[in-house]
Amino acid sequence: MRGADALLRTLVGNDVDVCFANPGTSEMHFVAALDAVPEMRGVLGLFEGVVTGAADGYGRMTGRPAATLLHLGPGLGNGLANLHNARRARTPIVNVVGDHALDHKVLDAPLESDIDAVAGSVSRWVRRSTSVSSLPGDAVDAVVASRTGGGGSATLILPADVAWTDGAEPAGPGAVPAPSPVDDDTVRSTADVLRSAGASAAVFVGGPVMDPDGMAALQAIHEATGARVLHETFPSRMTRGAGRFESDRLMYLAEMAADQLAGVEHLVLVGTVEPVAFFAYPDKPGRLVPAGCTVHAFASPGDDCGGALAELAGRVAGRIEPTPATVGPLDRPTGAIDVFTAAAAVAATLPEGAIVSDESATCGLFMQGATLHAPEHDWLSLTGGAIGQGMPVATGAAIACRDRPVLSIQADGSAMYTIQALWTQAREQLDVTTVICNNGAYAVLAMEMDRVGGEFGGPISRSMFDLTRPDIDFCRLAEGQGVPATRATDAEALTDALERAQREPGPHVIEAMFRP
Amino acid sequence: MRGADALLRTLVGNDVDVCFANPGTSEMHFVAALDAVPEMRGVLGLFEGVVTGAADGYGRMTGRPAATLLHLGPGLGNGLANLHNARRARTPIVNVVGDHALDHKVLDAPLESDIDAVAGSVSRWVRRSTSVSSLPGDAVDAVVASRTGGGGSATLILPADVAWTDGAEPAGPGAVPAPSPVDDDTVRSTADVLRSAGASAAVFVGGPVMDPDGMAALQAIHEATGARVLHETFPSRMTRGAGRFESDRLMYLAEMAADQLAGVEHLVLVGTVEPVAFFAYPDKPGRLVPAGCTVHAFASPGDDCGGALAELAGRVAGRIEPTPATVGPLDRPTGAIDVFTAAAAVAATLPEGAIVSDESATCGLFMQGATLHAPEHDWLSLTGGAIGQGMPVATGAAIACRDRPVLSIQADGSAMYTIQALWTQAREQLDVTTVICNNGAYAVLAMEMDRVGGEFGGPISRSMFDLTRPDIDFCRLAEGQGVPATRATDAEALTDALERAQREPGPHVIEAMFRP
Repeated sequence: MRGADALLRTLVGNDVDVCFANPGTSEMHFVAALDAVPEMRGVLGLFEGVVTGAADGYGRMTGRPAATLLHLGPGLGNGLANLHNARRARTPIVNVVGDHALDHKVLDAPLESDIDAVAGSVSRWVRRSTSVSSLPGDAVDAVVASRTGGGGSATLILPADVAWTDGAEPAGPGAVPAPSPVDDDTVRSTADVLRSAGASAAVFVGGPVMDPDGMAALQAIHEATGARVLHETFPSRMTRGAGRFESDRLMYLAEMAADQLAGVEHLVLVGTVEPVAFFAYPDKPGRLVPAGCTVHAFASPGDDCGGALAELAGRVAGRIEPTPATVGPLDRPTGAIDVFTAAAAVAATLPEGAIVSDESATCGLFMQGATLHAPEHDWLSLTGGAIGQGMPVATGAAIACRDRPVLSIQADGSAMYTIQALWTQAREQLDVTTVICNNGAYAVLAMEMDRVGGEFGGPISRSMFDLTRPDIDFCRLAEGQGVPATRATDAEALTDALERAQREPGPHVIEAMFRP
Repeated sequence: MRGADALLRTLVGNDVDVCFANPGTSEMHFVAALDAVPEMRGVLGLFEGVVTGAADGYGRMTGRPAATLLHLGPGLGNGLANLHNARRARTPIVNVVGDHALDHKVLDAPLESDIDAVAGSVSRWVRRSTSVSSLPGDAVDAVVASRTGGGGSATLILPADVAWTDGAEPAGPGAVPAPSPVDDDTVRSTADVLRSAGASAAVFVGGPVMDPDGMAALQAIHEATGARVLHETFPSRMTRGAGRFESDRLMYLAEMAADQLAGVEHLVLVGTVEPVAFFAYPDKPGRLVPAGCTVHAFASPGDDCGGALAELAGRVAGRIEPTPATVGPLDRPTGAIDVFTAAAAVAATLPEGAIVSDESATCGLFMQGATLHAPEHDWLSLTGGAIGQGMPVATGAAIACRDRPVLSIQADGSAMYTIQALWTQAREQLDVTTVICNNGAYAVLAMEMDRVGGEFGGPISRSMFDLTRPDIDFCRLAEGQGVPATRATDAEALTDALERAQREPGPHVIEAMFRP
């Protein structure tokens, strides 16, 4: 069979059975193979940032890689920002980047570019497949690489002639290595630190342990030792709600984060790395951990973090007895839409088992706090700071979990980076409700300008954060892509619209007006 | 003064006075400096692909670089595809990519990535400015680099602390080297080749000589020697129309291009490189030049191509006497909208001095032929094959030439890559008329699938080229961004809408329905 057919069969045989795609001419044989290998589901995106962000959302929800199909260097470039976010989320993804036929590359045709260099910036593994006989093995290696060391992008560059040449045989499943266990000595010594340091210790956790089991272990550690428990500002995924114990979120603003960490003498890392300021500011430190604090890299993202955390909790606390789950009460908000009422509307209507894709920026400041008592749900954050992630991630999460409702909470400025995601939601009739928080501004930048220096911000520079000249009508942008839309101008209407959208099948957009 | 202020003053002093921007926190001091240096015009784009494509359109029309302002690696990534196209167009651009402060980089904050590697793939010059004292000189070097060797992107990576630190002094103008002259011996020997080879020679030209002077010289060469004259499939810019002589376009399809070049024994290159197939296909050659043909690299893009061509024409023809310009007749089309009537509608309504940004793909097959007798205009092509260029390039061309009407002819599939360009057109109230050719398909891919192998194309793969599930309503997408829009369902309505849009100030969208 052709290389492309063998590639698809190999991917399917390695548990990769969704391909988010925006193909071009050099990918025609891959696309044609979708007919021959119907076990692989092809999902079309109108822009590569949708494709890669969807693969990120899919991978976060399943723990398995989706494939992406991208058209040479420019296609990879268009998808790069969301692969950057996926890199920070450590999401397994297998990128298939089509390229010119091997003997065509030397001709420097118009679409020729340095794919390897660009791919290297976001991938933990990059390989160009150079023959139809090596292609299936390369695909297996890509899948394994994407699922190793905590997860990440593996980028397989696929020359057109390797895809179209006959004589390939699919390869069988590769062996994905189990995460490394944390050794007993480390568990023991860390337990000793926590026991002796008491409230001067803090456990700092990331996405890999932010599920009910992880939180139960953390609650036990906290109750037994007095250690504080904090989590990354932007975890890849949190399973949360129902009133259960949750770690404190490390604040985005560096000065607040430094206050949170003040007095910590021992910081124990579980499934994450040492926290640092998101950006540098004049005369402010980039490291957030106080001077003199000892940082203990207890369990790195590639380790068996959940297992290690359970052992640690068992050692310091004996038994793990989490607070029973209870939902509510959750009051329906009234009045104007603002950060408080919008958060309350989301909390009052969040369905059991929902997946929340959060790119709400300044509008969503209180969303997480408000939803602590909402029914159990998953929360996906903007891990790498590259805006334009929220709607694609929601799309991929919905493909991954067809039976779960998805709520995509989206700031207006960032919505405009990958607004094309709505079309894929309509095409696939996904149960995604998107709330666009329309405040008519890059509000975070106006805030950041204040922070870098108070004397700043004349009318010209301030106009660079203004999205009201002209106003963007997100209802029209949604309807133009086949997604029904509603504008909500007060909290009651927002709450009603959320309920209605989540009751009806298929995608919906609610434009929440955070301004008169 | 601060580094950012000195940078802006240095750019302005080096004739760079427009900055297409999509900033983030690390660029706040650059943005703030827009108030201090109002000679620099900041133009906001809602997505970086708009920013870089606009800089490409601006540079093609002015010959001078605009600056872009991009937010770290992900911002550069989002702008990469249109920087790829600009690289192929050899457009001068100065990219300013904001980065973390120098001592923040080692902390591997969420937005940290390998900017240098990504920038290198599209730039002829990349430098990270490491101090406030070197920044102004770095900026001068960037401008000079962007204007050297035929032109290209120079990427200046600007750490936030270098931008915010005090003590900088602006640098004066740098010396842009003149293009290299082609030596007399080369002119003489090439003239000898053309004279002796007659109709078995062809001159193959690119954007740098595709203006009335260049075409007049080519007409003289053709008439004096019998040599054929051909041009690149996708030149960066052609000044054309008014019934004047024009070189033949090398066809996009490799088999047709090879037919055009059959029998050519000497190919003389002026302002371009040897033509090759856009893509490779099974059992088809990638080189288009016939076996045995001698390729003469007469004037490379970095050379004084116009001067060399004039000398060559003078030597073989003596006098250059082009056909006088005459416009029309141009009939108004009737009936359904198709490739013929749409081209006729454009030709019948094209205003004198228009700038055409052409990303019409299969819908625009006859646009260039139809407009040969339209009033003089400039034509900008999709140079690098990375779709999503057309509307951003139109935006930048309109900023460059405020007194000229711009016509943006746009295929529907590619329109969805950078649809956000419409918002900038509305914000800046640019005289851009965008015709979206809605055929509900990636039609070029359906054609390419036929070409790679006739047995292909089952229902699943064909569905990957279908843009009708759901239909995209481009009028709503335009109106949602503040641009008035009209749907034309026959050729009369299209012609009327074109006339009306070009008469009224500000941007307009016409959705031309290439289907019932």
